[in-house]
Amino acid sequence: MNGNTFGRLFRLTTFGESHGPGLGGVVDGCPAGLKLSDDDLQRALDERRPGRDGRGGAASTARREADRVRLLSGLFDGQSTGAPIAFYVENTDQRPGDYEALADIPRPGHADLGLLLKHGLSDHRGGGRASARETLCRVAGGAIAEKFLHARGIRIAACILEFAGIAAVPEDPFGARSRPWFCPDADSCLRWEEAARAAAREGDSLGGKVLVEIHGLPPGLGEPVFDKLDARLAYAFMGVGAVKGVEIGSGCAAAKMKGSEHNDPLVPAGPAGDARCLLPGGAPYAFASNHAGGILGGLSSGAPVLVTASVKPIASTAKTQRTLNLQGEMTELRIGGRHDISALPRIVPVLRAMAALCAADFLLLQRAARL
Amino acid sequence: MNGNTFGRLFRLTTFGESHGPGLGGVVDGCPAGLKLSDDDLQRALDERRPGRDGRGGAASTARREADRVRLLSGLFDGQSTGAPIAFYVENTDQRPGDYEALADIPRPGHADLGLLLKHGLSDHRGGGRASARETLCRVAGGAIAEKFLHARGIRIAACILEFAGIAAVPEDPFGARSRPWFCPDADSCLRWEEAARAAAREGDSLGGKVLVEIHGLPPGLGEPVFDKLDARLAYAFMGVGAVKGVEIGSGCAAAKMKGSEHNDPLVPAGPAGDARCLLPGGAPYAFASNHAGGILGGLSSGAPVLVTASVKPIASTAKTQRTLNLQGEMTELRIGGRHDISALPRIVPVLRAMAALCAADFLLLQRAARL
Amino acid sequence: MNGNTFGRLFRLTTFGESHGPGLGGVVDGCPAGLKLSDDDLQRALDERRPGRDGRGGAASTARREADRVRLLSGLFDGQSTGAPIAFYVENTDQRPGDYEALADIPRPGHADLGLLLKHGLSDHRGGGRASARETLCRVAGGAIAEKFLHARGIRIAACILEFAGIAAVPEDPFGARSRPWFCPDADSCLRWEEAARAAAREGDSLGGKVLVEIHGLPPGLGEPVFDKLDARLAYAFMGVGAVKGVEIGSGCAAAKMKGSEHNDPLVPAGPAGDARCLLPGGAPYAFASNHAGGILGGLSSGAPVLVTASVKPIASTAKTQRTLNLQGEMTELRIGGRHDISALPRIVPVLRAMAALCAADFLLLQRAARL
Amino acid sequence: MNGNTFGRLFRLTTFGESHGPGLGGVVDGCPAGLKLSDDDLQRALDERRPGRDGRGGAASTARREADRVRLLSGLFDGQSTGAPIAFYVENTDQRPGDYEALADIPRPGHADLGLLLKHGLSDHRGGGRASARETLCRVAGGAIAEKFLHARGIRIAACILEFAGIAAVPEDPFGARSRPWFCPDADSCLRWEEAARAAAREGDSLGGKVLVEIHGLPPGLGEPVFDKLDARLAYAFMGVGAVKGVEIGSGCAAAKMKGSEHNDPLVPAGPAGDARCLLPGGAPYAFASNHAGGILGGLSSGAPVLVTASVKPIASTAKTQRTLNLQGEMTELRIGGRHDISALPRIVPVLRAMAALCAADFLLLQRAARL
Repeated sequence: MNGNTFGRLFRLTTFGESHGPGLGGVVDGCPAGLKLSDDDLQRALDERRPGRDGRGGAASTARREADRVRLLSGLFDGQSTGAPIAFYVENTDQRPGDYEALADIPRPGHADLGLLLKHGLSDHRGGGRASARETLCRVAGGAIAEKFLHARGIRIAACILEFAGIAAVPEDPFGARSRPWFCPDADSCLRWEEAARAAAREGDSLGGKVLVEIHGLPPGLGEPVFDKLDARLAYAFMGVGAVKGVEIGSGCAAAKMKGSEHNDPLVPAGPAGDARCLLPGGAPYAFASNHAGGILGGLSSGAPVLVTASVKPIASTAKTQRTLNLQGEMTELRIGGRHDISALPRIVPVLRAMAALCAADFLLLQRAARL
Repeated sequence: MNGNTFGRLFRLTTFGESHGPGLGGVVDGCPAGLKLSDDDLQRALDERRPGRDGRGGAASTARREADRVRLLSGLFDGQSTGAPIAFYVENTDQRPGDYEALADIPRPGHADLGLLLKHGLSDHRGGGRASARETLCRVAGGAIAEKFLHARGIRIAACILEFAGIAAVPEDPFGARSRPWFCPDADSCLRWEEAARAAAREGDSLGGKVLVEIHGLPPGLGEPVFDKLDARLAYAFMGVGAVKGVEIGSGCAAAKMKGSEHNDPLVPAGPAGDARCLLPGGAPYAFASNHAGGILGGLSSGAPVLVTASVKPIASTAKTQRTLNLQGEMTELRIGGRHDISALPRIVPVLRAMAALCAADFLLLQRAARL
Repeated sequence: MNGNTFGRLFRLTTFGESHGPGLGGVVDGCPAGLKLSDDDLQRALDERRPGRDGRGGAASTARREADRVRLLSGLFDGQSTGAPIAFYVENTDQRPGDYEALADIPRPGHADLGLLLKHGLSDHRGGGRASARETLCRVAGGAIAEKFLHARGIRIAACILEFAGIAAVPEDPFGARSRPWFCPDADSCLRWEEAARAAAREGDSLGGKVLVEIHGLPPGLGEPVFDKLDARLAYAFMGVGAVKGVEIGSGCAAAKMKGSEHNDPLVPAGPAGDARCLLPGGAPYAFASNHAGGILGGLSSGAPVLVTASVKPIASTAKTQRTLNLQGEMTELRIGGRHDISALPRIVPVLRAMAALCAADFLLLQRAARL
Repeated sequence: MNGNTFGRLFRLTTFGESHGPGLGGVVDGCPAGLKLSDDDLQRALDERRPGRDGRGGAASTARREADRVRLLSGLFDGQSTGAPIAFYVENTDQRPGDYEALADIPRPGHADLGLLLKHGLSDHRGGGRASARETLCRVAGGAIAEKFLHARGIRIAACILEFAGIAAVPEDPFGARSRPWFCPDADSCLRWEEAARAAAREGDSLGGKVLVEIHGLPPGLGEPVFDKLDARLAYAFMGVGAVKGVEIGSGCAAAKMKGSEHNDPLVPAGPAGDARCLLPGGAPYAFASNHAGGILGGLSSGAPVLVTASVKPIASTAKTQRTLNLQGEMTELRIGGRHDISALPRIVPVLRAMAALCAADFLLLQRAARL
């Protein structure tokens, strides 16, 4: 209902601003019996942290917060009890002074003006609630969802597919987690790092594409008609700041294909097939191709779910911009403070988290499908 | 919550199968005082009907239902009363016999297998609830939403942007409503018609792209963080069968742009500016460009909202396909019955309807934004 | 969210007015595989019908509609498919003329003025949406829920506990279904019938109490903290027009009891115990008493759930009333048309339906409680 | 949806256990521009605190937590921004040791067994999430709602109406806030104090009734059909632990009244009338009586809304109880730790809070009622 809650049965509600006391969230609906600790969330947050161990270093800012997360509720003897699981991260590295100048000039490409016109007032310090820092709550909540998915044999891969127009080959999406720039191949990240440094020199910013794969979803997940699995994934991904396009499987390229090319025929599954993909009579099945991206008619098909997000370049750069101030006068705006060159690679764990939240929610909903 | 309801305050719930007694829906939350009649819904349904007055004739099937819609509740003296508005369309042209053969072979590219595995049984007659015929309920509900939007000065245009790889020029999106193939320029539809006829001869099917524009939204609509305006539009559009990609403004192309290119600076509005776009002090504003597609940080910016959907080619064609039957044996499938060459142009009014439902919902939510 | 939908996973949305074309509803979320037919709904509606086979004859009006219900969707081969199940009842016995005089005088004890002030307009014909006739949609939806409960071994009894201040003995609540006045004992209904006739002679109306029992709920149903089982039952029952009080188990009498009296100690279950009531180690348990009414801390305890509703006398009587007209002048109001003496016994099937809808919803939610 | 969130547009989500790190909540949907500080919440919490300044001293335990509440988000320059408002209270006075013995014996009258059977495990320390301590989150969230209501001229009174069978006269409900035992008259509390001391000597516990009045609600609030104002209030109140009955206006007594007695005729308002109660033509109105308790057909009528809750005696007493342990053996249970004699007067601020949350939610929903 309200914008700060995601999910129906497995729900995440988030709160907090970039420059307030802290940020946090509440996961409600996590089934009882899940082993969980601060470390599970911390590991996920560490992946999102800018510039951690040299990964995507040229893309991200110098803001280095400890971002220590703490679970506040919902656990007993290290297991979820079915009660809401709250977590909290204190803000420690605030520099609101950096944003004073912005009170009078809405930043182009940001929510500043929209929030002001919506609510009649706004928190201009670092974008307030619209700050990218808000996404750490998604990552923490997503880590809980992913733990639940693992217990069900579902795994999620997330990688950068393209940066600054330079495409990688998604030959090892699962390995991306341990490679610089969440890179799905051996060396594209070298060229990405180079492009990022060049943009940094120009004071400009860059965009790219992220691929998320969900493996092991049982077939039939999703709720027709409006709440299709692909619809919820599109909602989840487009709701992350800077995402301007979401594609499932063949995505926008499907518009140019013929039906005879696009269909993915069913074939008998080999011995390496997914044990979940059984026809009603018990015969294992697979697909000859995966243009559908693992979703047919809004339901998981048994093939891996493939979602691609296109991410715009970061709006705030070191360059001086000409725009209106709140009095309607043309002004030169030079945004101080810290600048990321790109929302990638930091957005990778965020999109993984959103995919996990989606999948966990549908898994629980699925339990109501049969008598 | 459940898949058959869309919206929070302005809600549409739909029901009905392609081959049952009929289809219908309930709009709950439409404010009182809106003038409404059967004709308002009928006109919208007529636009969705296949092959009406020669438009997109080569793309659509020969199924010609009267599709007479009837309002069942929620009106008094021709005005909405605040009570739920139900509507109903009887099915008159059913040929379930066409689908008998399908009970044993799930059609590639359809929800058949997914529904069977989800629920343990399925209605194989024409896809049951997953039939494209379900979309007429969206169109009827959307017509109510659009009437509400008109009363608030908001207008929606929807057109085909590309078909069979042939792009049109979106020079007159509003005029598309009265042109063949919902074509936004003078003559692209001639080439589209030709491509459709060629595909029909081959027994194949085609995809394309649809553009929807929403003009006149007051700035600030949308609910951060998860329920952004663009997130809901992506959800609404991706939830329409056959859509594989959704883009806002610059969309996927944003991934290759630099920040200095992508930002849309504010400029003073000329005399033709949107009267809704006023800075807090009263000065009118506009944007020098619209890469953002009218949405910044998930909130309407005041510029027209631009959404593009990529539509896959129709999965069921006249061609024989090789696939598995439910016993796990490779089989030849030849789908009888009626075949559309493309979901376009029929999907155009459906996407318009979804945009209208989204906008109406956010307009009502917006009323809670200030003290 | 909106007032016309009840439930989260097992949801009923209703529509229709007393004097429009008809009334109906949509049940969304009923699991697939439930056998269902028009007859299941018709039988339930027939129980709600005024004056059927002499039951509570003196209490109810002469309006005799056929109330033929028809299922419109969601079934295939006589079974639910998981798709929304819609039903519809046409209005055939309308006499809007009876209500013309009411356009100018809001009836005391009714929603007339409230609806007018809420929406700025209202449908004064028989109360529009606020008519008691709306409850037939609850009964039809409840019949679907009850069929689902039966498949899970859950049974609901509903009876009149008190009428016109004359209390019955709830010695056989399940037998009430086949007795006049839904009477839970052998002969209280004779005195009730007498009281009703006396009130009819005076042109007055009467109230009473209804008891609903749910047997066979598995222990642990209910969602702490806000969505307790008793909270939802109170919501469901108080949302039925004319109900002014809802009690669980000992109810209001609990206010005068001591803790040592009120507690229901656990005891070993005898051979006739409920097979669902097993301690974690497997030992069967029962309760020595049931002051709690089968709900502890908002969760079903395993004992029968007991809910009592107090029903006010019907507001519209044959007596002339002095009240204000819309111009603010004191006026004499004489309400023509048909008058029930009491909402009882007609409300009994309505409350049974609400209990069934509640229970079905919690049964599905319960499936998400464990890993 | 989930049990830990209350409200649709004005929503409170709570988290935390009696014996975990702390408790807190998130209010989402509070309009921007509301002045708010830690002190607003602290004052409300202090009213709920056991034994504060001698009020109801004999009724409540010796547990004395500081219960310092801290706002974590949603504010800028002392005003709400429209972002979620989170608050947190650390637990400082835990004595989990007191509860060790309870791991094996579910306490009669508590949720212990239900939670265990629901989730397969439970947090037995002080009832975990089912602890009365959870209600402090309701009080904190309610304080935010009440601040919003004050800004709209709406005031709420809450008092004890009856304790240990001794009724007070509700002659000054608003004054109760500053009287011992939230007593609505001058001296009933003296007899209540005496009864409480007597029960303490016996090691027993006591129940009673609480009255909540909402003054100043604009007429027309509430959402027919299921989401009536009285239905939501019943839901809100019955969802508070220990409440076994909820009555609106005449409540259960209505069951014995005649229609000619129960109706509240409209009369012209005197000069002291509520300025909100205007007929469509502008004439002020009032009611000759208020049996309806300010709600007609589920909508506020303009008269004060009157809700009464009946509260059972506290289940855990100092008395030894005979009951089953988890192995199914009859056992003597003696509950150590701290014992309240009664949930009153501590429940008074909790019910006030629930009324405030309800009213705030409906006020926002109401904004969508008209074109």
